[in-house]
Amino acid sequence: MYSNKENVNILTSLLVAHGITHAVVCPGSRNAPIVHNLNECPDIECFSVTDERSAGFYALGMAQALKRPVVVCVTSGTALLNLAPAVAEACYQHVSIVVVSADRPASWIDQLDGQTLPQPDALGRFVRKAVSLPEPHDDETRWYCNRLVNEALVVRHAPVHINVPITEPLFGFSVAELPLERRIEFSPADMSPATLSHITHMFLQAKRPMLVSGQPMNPLYDEAVGLVGDDEGYIPDFVLYIGGSIVSKRLKRFLRKAKETWVVNETGEVADTFMNLTHVFQGDGEAVADHIRFMMVMEPHPFVQKWDELLARIRTQASAYEPAYSSMAAVKYFEHYVGDAEVHYANSSAIRLANSFAQHPVWCNRGVNGIEGSLSTAAGFSCATDSRVFCVIGDLSFFYDQNALWNQNLGGRFRILLLNNGCGGIFNMLPGLEQSPARDAYVAARHHTSAEGICQQNDIVYLSASDMPQMRAGIDTLLNIESERPVLLEVFTDPRDDEQVMKDYNKICKI
Amino acid sequence: MYSNKENVNILTSLLVAHGITHAVVCPGSRNAPIVHNLNECPDIECFSVTDERSAGFYALGMAQALKRPVVVCVTSGTALLNLAPAVAEACYQHVSIVVVSADRPASWIDQLDGQTLPQPDALGRFVRKAVSLPEPHDDETRWYCNRLVNEALVVRHAPVHINVPITEPLFGFSVAELPLERRIEFSPADMSPATLSHITHMFLQAKRPMLVSGQPMNPLYDEAVGLVGDDEGYIPDFVLYIGGSIVSKRLKRFLRKAKETWVVNETGEVADTFMNLTHVFQGDGEAVADHIRFMMVMEPHPFVQKWDELLARIRTQASAYEPAYSSMAAVKYFEHYVGDAEVHYANSSAIRLANSFAQHPVWCNRGVNGIEGSLSTAAGFSCATDSRVFCVIGDLSFFYDQNALWNQNLGGRFRILLLNNGCGGIFNMLPGLEQSPARDAYVAARHHTSAEGICQQNDIVYLSASDMPQMRAGIDTLLNIESERPVLLEVFTDPRDDEQVMKDYNKICKI
Amino acid sequence: MYSNKENVNILTSLLVAHGITHAVVCPGSRNAPIVHNLNECPDIECFSVTDERSAGFYALGMAQALKRPVVVCVTSGTALLNLAPAVAEACYQHVSIVVVSADRPASWIDQLDGQTLPQPDALGRFVRKAVSLPEPHDDETRWYCNRLVNEALVVRHAPVHINVPITEPLFGFSVAELPLERRIEFSPADMSPATLSHITHMFLQAKRPMLVSGQPMNPLYDEAVGLVGDDEGYIPDFVLYIGGSIVSKRLKRFLRKAKETWVVNETGEVADTFMNLTHVFQGDGEAVADHIRFMMVMEPHPFVQKWDELLARIRTQASAYEPAYSSMAAVKYFEHYVGDAEVHYANSSAIRLANSFAQHPVWCNRGVNGIEGSLSTAAGFSCATDSRVFCVIGDLSFFYDQNALWNQNLGGRFRILLLNNGCGGIFNMLPGLEQSPARDAYVAARHHTSAEGICQQNDIVYLSASDMPQMRAGIDTLLNIESERPVLLEVFTDPRDDEQVMKDYNKICKI
Amino acid sequence: MYSNKENVNILTSLLVAHGITHAVVCPGSRNAPIVHNLNECPDIECFSVTDERSAGFYALGMAQALKRPVVVCVTSGTALLNLAPAVAEACYQHVSIVVVSADRPASWIDQLDGQTLPQPDALGRFVRKAVSLPEPHDDETRWYCNRLVNEALVVRHAPVHINVPITEPLFGFSVAELPLERRIEFSPADMSPATLSHITHMFLQAKRPMLVSGQPMNPLYDEAVGLVGDDEGYIPDFVLYIGGSIVSKRLKRFLRKAKETWVVNETGEVADTFMNLTHVFQGDGEAVADHIRFMMVMEPHPFVQKWDELLARIRTQASAYEPAYSSMAAVKYFEHYVGDAEVHYANSSAIRLANSFAQHPVWCNRGVNGIEGSLSTAAGFSCATDSRVFCVIGDLSFFYDQNALWNQNLGGRFRILLLNNGCGGIFNMLPGLEQSPARDAYVAARHHTSAEGICQQNDIVYLSASDMPQMRAGIDTLLNIESERPVLLEVFTDPRDDEQVMKDYNKICKI
Repeated sequence: MYSNKENVNILTSLLVAHGITHAVVCPGSRNAPIVHNLNECPDIECFSVTDERSAGFYALGMAQALKRPVVVCVTSGTALLNLAPAVAEACYQHVSIVVVSADRPASWIDQLDGQTLPQPDALGRFVRKAVSLPEPHDDETRWYCNRLVNEALVVRHAPVHINVPITEPLFGFSVAELPLERRIEFSPADMSPATLSHITHMFLQAKRPMLVSGQPMNPLYDEAVGLVGDDEGYIPDFVLYIGGSIVSKRLKRFLRKAKETWVVNETGEVADTFMNLTHVFQGDGEAVADHIRFMMVMEPHPFVQKWDELLARIRTQASAYEPAYSSMAAVKYFEHYVGDAEVHYANSSAIRLANSFAQHPVWCNRGVNGIEGSLSTAAGFSCATDSRVFCVIGDLSFFYDQNALWNQNLGGRFRILLLNNGCGGIFNMLPGLEQSPARDAYVAARHHTSAEGICQQNDIVYLSASDMPQMRAGIDTLLNIESERPVLLEVFTDPRDDEQVMKDYNKICKI
Repeated sequence: MYSNKENVNILTSLLVAHGITHAVVCPGSRNAPIVHNLNECPDIECFSVTDERSAGFYALGMAQALKRPVVVCVTSGTALLNLAPAVAEACYQHVSIVVVSADRPASWIDQLDGQTLPQPDALGRFVRKAVSLPEPHDDETRWYCNRLVNEALVVRHAPVHINVPITEPLFGFSVAELPLERRIEFSPADMSPATLSHITHMFLQAKRPMLVSGQPMNPLYDEAVGLVGDDEGYIPDFVLYIGGSIVSKRLKRFLRKAKETWVVNETGEVADTFMNLTHVFQGDGEAVADHIRFMMVMEPHPFVQKWDELLARIRTQASAYEPAYSSMAAVKYFEHYVGDAEVHYANSSAIRLANSFAQHPVWCNRGVNGIEGSLSTAAGFSCATDSRVFCVIGDLSFFYDQNALWNQNLGGRFRILLLNNGCGGIFNMLPGLEQSPARDAYVAARHHTSAEGICQQNDIVYLSASDMPQMRAGIDTLLNIESERPVLLEVFTDPRDDEQVMKDYNKICKI
Repeated sequence: MYSNKENVNILTSLLVAHGITHAVVCPGSRNAPIVHNLNECPDIECFSVTDERSAGFYALGMAQALKRPVVVCVTSGTALLNLAPAVAEACYQHVSIVVVSADRPASWIDQLDGQTLPQPDALGRFVRKAVSLPEPHDDETRWYCNRLVNEALVVRHAPVHINVPITEPLFGFSVAELPLERRIEFSPADMSPATLSHITHMFLQAKRPMLVSGQPMNPLYDEAVGLVGDDEGYIPDFVLYIGGSIVSKRLKRFLRKAKETWVVNETGEVADTFMNLTHVFQGDGEAVADHIRFMMVMEPHPFVQKWDELLARIRTQASAYEPAYSSMAAVKYFEHYVGDAEVHYANSSAIRLANSFAQHPVWCNRGVNGIEGSLSTAAGFSCATDSRVFCVIGDLSFFYDQNALWNQNLGGRFRILLLNNGCGGIFNMLPGLEQSPARDAYVAARHHTSAEGICQQNDIVYLSASDMPQMRAGIDTLLNIESERPVLLEVFTDPRDDEQVMKDYNKICKI
Repeated sequence: MYSNKENVNILTSLLVAHGITHAVVCPGSRNAPIVHNLNECPDIECFSVTDERSAGFYALGMAQALKRPVVVCVTSGTALLNLAPAVAEACYQHVSIVVVSADRPASWIDQLDGQTLPQPDALGRFVRKAVSLPEPHDDETRWYCNRLVNEALVVRHAPVHINVPITEPLFGFSVAELPLERRIEFSPADMSPATLSHITHMFLQAKRPMLVSGQPMNPLYDEAVGLVGDDEGYIPDFVLYIGGSIVSKRLKRFLRKAKETWVVNETGEVADTFMNLTHVFQGDGEAVADHIRFMMVMEPHPFVQKWDELLARIRTQASAYEPAYSSMAAVKYFEHYVGDAEVHYANSSAIRLANSFAQHPVWCNRGVNGIEGSLSTAAGFSCATDSRVFCVIGDLSFFYDQNALWNQNLGGRFRILLLNNGCGGIFNMLPGLEQSPARDAYVAARHHTSAEGICQQNDIVYLSASDMPQMRAGIDTLLNIESERPVLLEVFTDPRDDEQVMKDYNKICKI
C-alpha cells in the first residue's frame, strides 16, 4: 500500500519510470510518506543513513558506482542544508544525485512553526534544476506536478532537487497502486541521422500525425479548429511540435486532445504547451520538419492531406470574404499587394489578422507578446537590411513605442500601416468583459490620439484614411511611393465596425 | 459587483482597508479583474496610463504628493518589467508604491503560452517585499492569501510587489460584496511608553487575555490544553505573543481558536502562527511581558488566575506521577536535582520532556528544530561560561553530532545526559506511522549503538545505566562528581517502555 | 606579527574594534592568515573545532552564553556550506554569528582550480548581510574593504557573512601592527531625546560643524566650494548628513576632506558618501536638523555663520548676474516669478540650474537620476494635488518620457518649461569629452526635434520661444494663463550659448 | 585613438574578434568611453537611439535581420532596467543581444552617489550569462577581464550582459591601438567525425603536444615538472585538456607556459585553468583522448615519447625509493599489493601520495576538494558494487566523516586504511606556515585521537600499526582477511617522519 499523498505517489511512480534503483533515506517524520513509498517499491532498494551530510556522500558514491542517478531523501528543515557539501561536490563532478526533500506547505514558511525554512532554492546553483511540487487538487495541478518531476528527472550529469510540500495528516497508507504517470523523455544529442529517421518514422507511421510550428504563424488554423468543432476525425494522435509560440488559444486547446506530442527545439527546453508531451529532442526543428515534408512529397499521408484540404477550403472562403471598411479590410488589402517584403506585425489584433490573411512568413514579438517594442523591432530591422520593411500595428502598440521614430537612423525603406480604432481593439473581442464598466476607460484605454503630430515631430511622411477608397489609395501609396523618409499610413476605423466584421468573418469560416 | 476571483477580492478589500485611495491602472486583459475591482471601489480613484513605464512614474509622483502609498496595476508579461525604472527610483527615494501585477498561474510559466515570464521576483531587490498570491481553494489558502497581502501592505517607505496569478475564465463580475478581511497592523516604532500602555491596557481590559511566549518552554501547556478539551471557558479572546517557537502542536492548534493575537518582537517580522494576528509591534517582548506581569501583581486578572490554577493542578499531578524506568524517569529525576545550572535540551523527545518536568528556563535549538547541532551548541556554550552546562539529548541527536566532542576545548564543566532507546523515540509516538513497514528501519532509524566508543576516543568520562537504581546513581554522579574532563551518562531504555510511560502520563494528566 | 594580507588585517582590526572576544576556528590553509591573526590578538580567544558543521553550533552556543557576536572562521570550498545549518538556526534564533570564510580570488572561481565554489552568496537569506572583501591595491579599495567589514559588523541579532578572497602566497607574517581602522557605529533605535541631545551637543561643540542635506537641493554649494578652493578654514571637522542625494560632485569631493560624518536616516542604511562616516543613527533626519537649527537661533555658531555669509555673498552675485539668452536665462527668469507652486526639475542640466537659482524646495528624481520618468512623475504629481505643478525639463528627458502626455488624466494645473537645445546639454560641459568624435552624434544625441507635434497629438497648449523677449513673454503666459489643458513652453537655445553662459557664470562666482 | 580604459579596450577588441558589426548606442556619460570605442572601430556601425527601451528592441530587430549578435550599449543606472522588456523578448525568441552597460565601480554602489544601482545581475534570468568586468591592475585581472568577455560572447541563441565598471576620469582617448586579445572559440555541437579529426590533426601536427586529463590522477607529473624545471624543451605548445581537476599545483603552473589549450568537456563549460584556453569543444573528452592515443600507436609523436620516457624514469626512481616508516611507506606498500579493487583516496596528503604510487585509476572527491565526505562516498560506493572497496584516508578526513560508519548498510567488502599522524599532515608541507604560532593548534588541528572507539561503537574490525612490520602485516590482513564486517587499519605515524620522508622522496625525484 502506498501513501495517500498524491504528489508523493506521482513522484514515486516517475522515479521508478525513470529507472531509479537506489535511494539513501534519512529518518524523519515529514518525509515518512516518501520513505514509506520508496520502501514499498520492489524496484528500489533503500539505504538508511541518519547523518544527512554523510547520506549525501553515500548517494554520490553509489551514483559513481552505478553510473546512474541515485535518490537521497531527507525531511524538512536544516536536513536539506546538510546535503549542500555533497551536492556541491556532485555538481563539480557532474554526477547525478536526485535530492528529494519533504517540506511544510509554502503557506507555513517563516510562521514560527517547526522545522520550516525556505527550502525550494536552498541548494542554489549547485543543482541544475530545482522544483517544488504542488499538492494537486485538480487535473491541472496534477499535470503540473507530473511535469515538474519530469523536468527534474530528465537532467543528466548534474544534481537536481525535488522539494515536496506535504500537508498533515502525514501518515495514511491506503493507496493500493501508484498512478501510471506520463514520463517525458529527453534526448540531449544533436540530431543524428538515426534520430532524424526515428522521428520521421514515428510521424509517417502515425495514424493521425500533425506537424505544428509557431512563431508567429499558424495561418487559418484558428478558423479550422473552430470549424472542426468536436469532429474526432480531425484530432491528431501524434503531434510533432518544432517550437515557437502559437497565437491561437483555440488551436492550443484543440491540440491538448492529441494523444502525445514530441518536441524538437534547439535549447532542449521542456515546454509542455499541449499538456501531452512525451519526448523532447534538442536539435534544429526546422530541419526535421523539412525532412518530413520532403518524405511526404514522395508518399503523402492521408491525415495530413485531409487537414491540407480543410485549410485550403477555409483559405478560399477567407479569400472570398469582402469585409466592410475596417482594420480587417485594410490588412486584407495590404496583404494582397505587399509581395515579398519583410513584414512585422505587432501583437494583439494585428498578428491575429495576419494569421487569417498573410500569404508569407511574418515577424512578430511572440516571445512574451509585449506591446512595447513592436515598432522599434521593425525599425531596427530596417536598419540592418536592404529590403523594404513594413510594420502593421494597432494604435496602443504604436503610441506606446512612438520613441522608435525619434532618432536619425531611419530611411524610406521603413513603412508603417497604423490601424487606429481609438483603443486596444482586442478588448472588444473578449467575451464577458463587456459587463465591466471599467472596460472602455481603463481596460481598453479608449483615446482620441492621431499619429500626425508624432510624424511631424520626427519628419515621417504622413498619410491617413477614413474610408475604403482612401484606405486603398493609401496602401497603394504606402507600397509604392519613393521616399527618403519613412512613410506612415494611419487607417482610422470604428471599433464597433471592427468587431462586427470580425464576427461576420467568423461566421463565414464556420460554413 | 466585483470580480469572481477570490484572490482579487481579498486583495481589493485589503487595499481599501489599508487606506489606498489612488491607483494608476494600465490596460490589459489578464489584469482586467483587478482593474474592474479598483474601479468599483468608491474609496479608490483610478487613473489610466497606457505606457507602463510612464505609469510607474505617475504612481511615484502621486505618492510624493499624497505622502502615502499609491497602487500601480499592470497586466502579465513584460508589462511588469516596464515598471522597473520607477520602482528603482522609488526604492532609493524611500517612497511607497504598491505594484500589483496580474499573472498566469505558475504552472504555465515557460510553457510557450502567451505573455508568461517569471514574474514573482522580477523586480528584484528594488522592492522591499514581493508576494505572489495563491488562488484560494480552501480556508488555509484563503488565510495564506490574506496574510501575504497584509505582509506587503504593512511595509512603509519602500515599494512592494503583489503578483496575482489568475486562472481563466477571467471575466466574471457577479460578486455583490467584497469579503471583510482581517487587516494586520504594524507598528515599527520602538516601544514608547504610550505603546506600552496601550498594549497593557488592551491586555488587562480583555475578558480572556493570555500571555504566550515560546523558545522553547511553555511548561505543561500541552497537558493543559489536552485537559481543557472543548471547554470554551478556557479559550482566550486576546493573545499577546512575545515570540519564540512553541513546542506543543496541540497548544498552537488551541490558540487558533482565539479571537485575535497581538505580537511583539524585535525584528518586526509578521509571523501569524495562530492564524489570527492583527497587530505586530516591533520591540522587546520580554519587557512588555514584565510590565504586564507587574501590573497583574497589583490587580490580578480572573482569567489569567484561572489558567494559573489549571497549570498548578497539572503540575501537582505531574509531580506526583512516578514513571517506571524510562527516558521520562531519567529526565524527571534529573530535573528534580539539577538546581540552577545551564541546561540545554536537544530537539524531539528531550525538549518535550523538559516541557513537562523542567522547573527553570532551558536552552534548545527551536529556530529550525534541527537535530544536527544540539550537542555542539551546548559544548560551545560551556566554553564561554563559568557555570556548569548540561546537555540532555536523545540518541539520534547525540550520534549525529558526536564530532562536538572531537576537540581540545572541553572541560569538566560540560556534562551530558544521553537518553538512548536505540532509535528516534519520537517516531513511536506519531499516530498512523505504525502502519508503515518502513517505520523502524528507515523512518526511526533503529540502531544498537552505544556512546562508549566515542567517549573513549575523546577522553570523556563515561557512565551508563540500564535500570532505575543505576540511573539514579548515575545522575547523582553526573551532577556532583568533580572532573577535569566532560562526563557523560548514557541511560539505556526500551522504546516500548518509553512509549508506555508517555501514554500513562498522558492519561494521568487528563484527570 | 600579523599577516601580510591587507584585507585580513583590516578585518582583524575591526573585529577587535567591534568587541569580538571569541572565535571558533577551523583548520585550513587558505584561512591560515586569518586564523593566525585571530590567534595573535590578545583580545580574542580562539577555539579550534575541525568539523565545520559542529564549529558553527559551537559559535551559536558561545554567542548565546556571551550575548554578543562570536566569530566562526573557515577555509574555502565546502567548508562554508557546512556552516549552513548553524547559520539557519542562528537566523531564526536572532543570534549574532560572524561567519568569516577564506576564499580564492573571484577570478579563479569555476576554473577547475582546487576548493573553489561561488562563496559570496552561499549562505543565502540566512545571513542578514553578506560581503566579500576586495584585496586592496589603492586607497579607494582600502576604504571599500573597511566599509564592507563595518557594514557586516553593525548588524545585530542576526548572522552575517564576511568572505575574504586571499591571493597566494598565503603565508607571510611580517606586519608588526594592525592598521588603525575607522569603526562605524550604528544606533538602530528611533530617536530618543537622549540621542537627539547627544547629536545636537556634538554638533554645537564641534569647531567646524556643517549640516548637509540633499534630495535634491544644496543651493549654491557647488559655487561656494569652487570659490573656497583649498582654503582650509572652510573645511568642516564634523558633518551631520541627514540624507538625500547630493547633486554637486564638487561638494561631495569637498566633504571628503572633513574629519568625520554622522548620518541620520530613516532606514538606517550605511551610506558612506563622504568616505569618513563614523556614526549612523536610524531616525528622522529632518527632525534632528530642525532641532539643531532651533538651537542655533539661540546661540549662533561662528563656523556655520561663516558659511552662511559665504553663501549669501554668492547668492548676491548669482542674483546680479544677467545671463544672455540661454537655458540659464530661462530658469532664472522662471524662478524669479514662479512663487510657491510645486516645481519638478528633471535630471541633468535642469536640476543643476535649480541649484543655482531656485528659491524654494524642488522635486527631482535623484534616487537613481534616471531621465526616463521626470515628466511622468510631475504629471502624476499633478493628478494628486490641487496646486499648480511645473516641470522644468531638458529635451532628451522630455522626448524620452513623452508618453507621460498620452492619457486622459491631465488638466490645466500641469505646466511644462521645456529647455530644448537640441541635445543632452550636459555633455557639452564634461571636460575631455570634446576630444571624442562620437560626442555629438552618439553621446549627446544631437537632434532637431520640437515638441510641437506631440503637443498637438495630445491636445497640450503649445508655446515656444527663440529669443529673450519671447522667452520672457512665454514664461509670463506659462505662469499666468488660465487653461483647461496642460501648457508647454518650449525654449529653443543654442548649446554653444548655453555652454558660454555657464562658463561666464562660473567665472562670476569665483570672484 | 581609443579610450584609456583597459577593460573597455579589451571588450572592444573582443567584440570585433567575435564578429560584431552593429551596435545600438544610447547617449550617456558613463558609457561614453565604450561608445567612443565602438565608433572608432571600422568594423562596427553605430546607431544612436536615446530611449533605451526602444534601443533594446532596435537591437532585437537588427539581430533578427542579420542572424547574428548585435550590441546595445547603455549608461549606468536605470538605463539598464529599460532594456529588460527587449531582453526578455529576445530570451524567449532565442535571439542574441549583447547588452553592454557602463557602471560605477562596485565600491560606490548604494553610497548615495549618482546613478548607482546593483547592475551586475539586474537582467536576472533573461540573460544566459552576465559578467561584470574588473578594471585590470595586473596581468591576472587582465586575464580575468579577457576571460569574462569571452565567456559572454561564446553564448549563442540568447541575450547576454556585460557590465563595465569604469572609474573616473572617464574621458581620455589617447590609446593608439586596441590590444590584441585572445579569443576563445566555442563548439557546442556534439563530437562529429569532422571535429574529432580536426582536434586529432591539430594534436598530431603540433610540435610539442600534450594530452592532459585530471580527476584525480596525473601520476608522477608533479615530480616530472619539478625535475624539468626551466628546461624549455619540455614545455608543450599545444595542450589538449579533457577535464577533471589537476591535483598538482606545480603542474598547473607549468602548463600556463604552454602556447594554447584546447578543452573538450561534456558540459561545454569554459574553464581556463591554464590561462591560455583558445577552444572549447562540448563532447566526450575520453573518446577524443582514446582516438588520439590510438593514432599515436600507429605513428608515435616524439614529444609525447620524450615525456613518456621522463615519466618512466621517475617511476623507476619512485619505485626504487624505500621510504622509512611513514604514511608514504604505508601507501606504497598498499599500492604494491592492492591489485584491481576500487580504491578511494581522501583529499589532502592521501591523494597526493596516490599520484606518486597508484598504478591504476582511483576515486577522489576533487570536485571541490572537501574533506567532509570522503569516507561516506567510499562507503556508499561499497553499497552499490560487488567489488572490494578500499578507502585510504588521513586522520582529519576520517574523524570529520566518522558518521559514515553509523548505519546498517556496510559489510566486509568495505575496508579502510587510516593514516593517522595526529594532525592535518598537509599543513606541515606548506612553506612559510611554520612561522605562524597558530599552525599546530589551530591550522593543522593537532589531536591525539584514535579510531578504536568509533570502530567499537559501530562494530568495525579494528587493526592498528605503529611500526613497519605491523603496518605490513596489517595491510596484508586488510587486503586478504575474510570478514562480514568492514575492516579498518589505523597506521600511526609521526608527522615529522612523514615530512622528512616526503622531503627525501622529493630529492630523489630531482635526480
